[in-house]
Amino acid sequence: MSGTRSFLIASTAEQTDLQLDSQGNLRHLLTMHNLEQQHITMLLDKAETYLSDIGKKPVRSTTLQGRTVASLFFEPSTRTRTSFELAAHRLGADFLNLNVNTSSRRKGESLLDTVYTLQAMQVDVLIVRDAQTGVPAYIANHANEFISVLNAGESTIAHPTQALLDLLTIRQQKKDFEKLTVAIIGDIKHSRVARSTSEALVTMGAPDIRLICPESLTPEKGTLPSQAKILHNVRDGISNADVIMPLRIQRERIENLADIPTVDQYYANYGLKSSHMSLAAPDAIVMHPGPMNRGIEIESKLADSAASVIQEQVKNGVAVRMAVLAAVIKSLNYKDSK
Amino acid sequence: MSGTRSFLIASTAEQTDLQLDSQGNLRHLLTMHNLEQQHITMLLDKAETYLSDIGKKPVRSTTLQGRTVASLFFEPSTRTRTSFELAAHRLGADFLNLNVNTSSRRKGESLLDTVYTLQAMQVDVLIVRDAQTGVPAYIANHANEFISVLNAGESTIAHPTQALLDLLTIRQQKKDFEKLTVAIIGDIKHSRVARSTSEALVTMGAPDIRLICPESLTPEKGTLPSQAKILHNVRDGISNADVIMPLRIQRERIENLADIPTVDQYYANYGLKSSHMSLAAPDAIVMHPGPMNRGIEIESKLADSAASVIQEQVKNGVAVRMAVLAAVIKSLNYKDSK
Amino acid sequence: MSGTRSFLIASTAEQTDLQLDSQGNLRHLLTMHNLEQQHITMLLDKAETYLSDIGKKPVRSTTLQGRTVASLFFEPSTRTRTSFELAAHRLGADFLNLNVNTSSRRKGESLLDTVYTLQAMQVDVLIVRDAQTGVPAYIANHANEFISVLNAGESTIAHPTQALLDLLTIRQQKKDFEKLTVAIIGDIKHSRVARSTSEALVTMGAPDIRLICPESLTPEKGTLPSQAKILHNVRDGISNADVIMPLRIQRERIENLADIPTVDQYYANYGLKSSHMSLAAPDAIVMHPGPMNRGIEIESKLADSAASVIQEQVKNGVAVRMAVLAAVIKSLNYKDSK
Repeated sequence: MSGTRSFLIASTAEQTDLQLDSQGNLRHLLTMHNLEQQHITMLLDKAETYLSDIGKKPVRSTTLQGRTVASLFFEPSTRTRTSFELAAHRLGADFLNLNVNTSSRRKGESLLDTVYTLQAMQVDVLIVRDAQTGVPAYIANHANEFISVLNAGESTIAHPTQALLDLLTIRQQKKDFEKLTVAIIGDIKHSRVARSTSEALVTMGAPDIRLICPESLTPEKGTLPSQAKILHNVRDGISNADVIMPLRIQRERIENLADIPTVDQYYANYGLKSSHMSLAAPDAIVMHPGPMNRGIEIESKLADSAASVIQEQVKNGVAVRMAVLAAVIKSLNYKDSK
Repeated sequence: MSGTRSFLIASTAEQTDLQLDSQGNLRHLLTMHNLEQQHITMLLDKAETYLSDIGKKPVRSTTLQGRTVASLFFEPSTRTRTSFELAAHRLGADFLNLNVNTSSRRKGESLLDTVYTLQAMQVDVLIVRDAQTGVPAYIANHANEFISVLNAGESTIAHPTQALLDLLTIRQQKKDFEKLTVAIIGDIKHSRVARSTSEALVTMGAPDIRLICPESLTPEKGTLPSQAKILHNVRDGISNADVIMPLRIQRERIENLADIPTVDQYYANYGLKSSHMSLAAPDAIVMHPGPMNRGIEIESKLADSAASVIQEQVKNGVAVRMAVLAAVIKSLNYKDSK
Repeated sequence: MSGTRSFLIASTAEQTDLQLDSQGNLRHLLTMHNLEQQHITMLLDKAETYLSDIGKKPVRSTTLQGRTVASLFFEPSTRTRTSFELAAHRLGADFLNLNVNTSSRRKGESLLDTVYTLQAMQVDVLIVRDAQTGVPAYIANHANEFISVLNAGESTIAHPTQALLDLLTIRQQKKDFEKLTVAIIGDIKHSRVARSTSEALVTMGAPDIRLICPESLTPEKGTLPSQAKILHNVRDGISNADVIMPLRIQRERIENLADIPTVDQYYANYGLKSSHMSLAAPDAIVMHPGPMNRGIEIESKLADSAASVIQEQVKNGVAVRMAVLAAVIKSLNYKDSK
């Protein structure tokens, strides 16, 4: 590995360039930043075709038959990896689980050599999760023309498939993004979900996005869309909100844990409770990207209430990942296919 | 997780209720306790149809095509997990291996939220192993109507698919349960195999079940079928026995290891040896649920002798698990299937 | 486990006997030692049929449909295990990943009991990697007639599928083995790749094989083919070489790390650099078995140069493993197949 800094060469602008091919089709999925409305709408529409009711057979297709999807996760994950694995299987792909972690990367082989190896094995799609900024774009920038990279979580800055499943869930419940008030509450500073989802909401025209956090978890300037308002008071933040999404505190990304409130303080001041819901819009929905800490960022009974669409999010997650896989595979035209 | 105690709400009676649907069909497989003869016989008969000779192709079917089976093992296991994985594949299902352990449960997400996530991903069958009593029933009690729970090992109290494979192996060798003398030797106190297999043997009418153990490993009253006799002397225990099954000492479940004999003492007093076999019935068979510690609970050459049916047990294990999967899947009627 | 020494009963001569069946067909793949030219050529020819260009669909077949391939790796590996997993999937097999490590073997169950378990589960092919000499042959010697063992890395002595992929890569580039000068540079003492690849090169008639290593990493007499020359100077070693393969230092197999040079010393004296290439034959190729440590055994830019065929090796690895799987499966005639 040529060192940490080399990852930083991919600016957000470069990421945007990387993720579309010369015909403007989705080539990699790296970021929600600058991904246009038409692409988001196309992916959400495609995802809808992969949904079936709970209790009905999941939709399957042969779109990825003969293809190989590999997960290259340098951070532990069960939920997202499983969602991608089911998505790949339900499209007919082979799925490889690579057991990698930072220590194995230190063992000597560079990140790019691992990628070159998978490329030589004719893997088609690489699902990448990493704690460091720039890794997915770095891989996309160096892989050959027959491999597609999907960002499954990148440091504090991007989690695009989470943003897509959030948007699909909101669209199912609220139809029109252009009148929406959305409140995201919690560790905004370290949340890649807050970033990707608010970027996508801005693109879809949501006029009122509120990011509510303790002072110590305020994001640095310029890291989130300028259209989003930073607030520190939950009651103000959820006033008339249509969509409310509490987040967990990302302890693993916080350098000085003394900066963050205790669990009890946090729940008292930032935990979303049923009693708050009268301040929100009458038909407000409650979302959570998971894993959820009941009794910390959300009152347990609220997570199970009629307002909660948390399980819909999970279900939509598989469909959205199927849609993304199906979209990028089209950009990888085999020489022998028509 | 609402806490440990909440798991205990599922009494054995409730488990029995949970495991059959309103038509009396197998809905979950949680315990052998009170599972009726007709269900056991049905499962053994079905398992027979999935057997082929070693060296012939394993039987395959499409019974679970389009279905997803997930293993949720909170205790390590290779043998049982692999057996379920092969069973699922040979029925055409997708199989998900979830890498969970107690520590990941402590990371914050509750057990039920993990289950709700899998449910939202349209997983059909959850294979659960846990060191704590009550977890499989707790999950079955809270999952929706489209998910089935199979107990793959629960604390010291239940291991129903092991009981079924033991019974299938005995039936193949001995035909008639109603004249059978069965001796189970070892750490009866901590053995879920002793419990489930003796419960199932009682149901099938086996008249003479002997549980032989050191004094310090005597099970508490009421935890095993009242029809089973507790003995402390191996020679008495295996006298005229038709089936003899030594067990390993479950060190991981023993709080005070000072209570248990040393390996040498144990082998001297409780190890099953070839020399014992003249005391047993002339055509007695030797079984072992595995993993086997040769030279501790069983003499190595006895494990490889003509009397040993240990490999038949393993082979029957896959067939029995196919039968259970095929049975519960019928109770999960998809809305779109006839 | 009857103990470490029992593995040693399989001498190289016995391995040779084990690996062919009575008709002279490949039954197991354990070693390159004494594997005849006709077998090697047959496997390389078969592997060629499984190759497609990068960017074309990988070749697939149904040769192993209904079969089960299991990996039993007692040493960590991502690269080799992944290559076998893709090979098995692309031939239509089910693939089982067994999470075993030395500690689990110490937990009590013997190696052979693990094998007997897999055999009873009707697994067809066992891919074995172990740090100890003799394990693959020991398993092959004790498994039944319906199971085939493939050695995926054995201590310092054998890695036959790596040898085959090296030979396929050389044959693609150089056509004629009989005029070839091959230089292998590095930790020859602990390298199973050096051993297997040089054995196979001797069999194919390569007249000039040079093994170049620091004094402290000189292999013991008799452990490598007598036709191979041991040298300690890189410049001499690569003079007019057609094929140059640097190896990594196998730190995990070195008892006294004080014996080996520092990284800087090593790179200065034994690292292969672009500047060396003018000493080699004009169209010399550079190979590496991976994982590669850039800046230690090889200059980074040389690994990416036109002379490098390192990615071809990886690609050929999948094809070679498909060829081996297809070959041994023919020796496992099911009773019910024609």
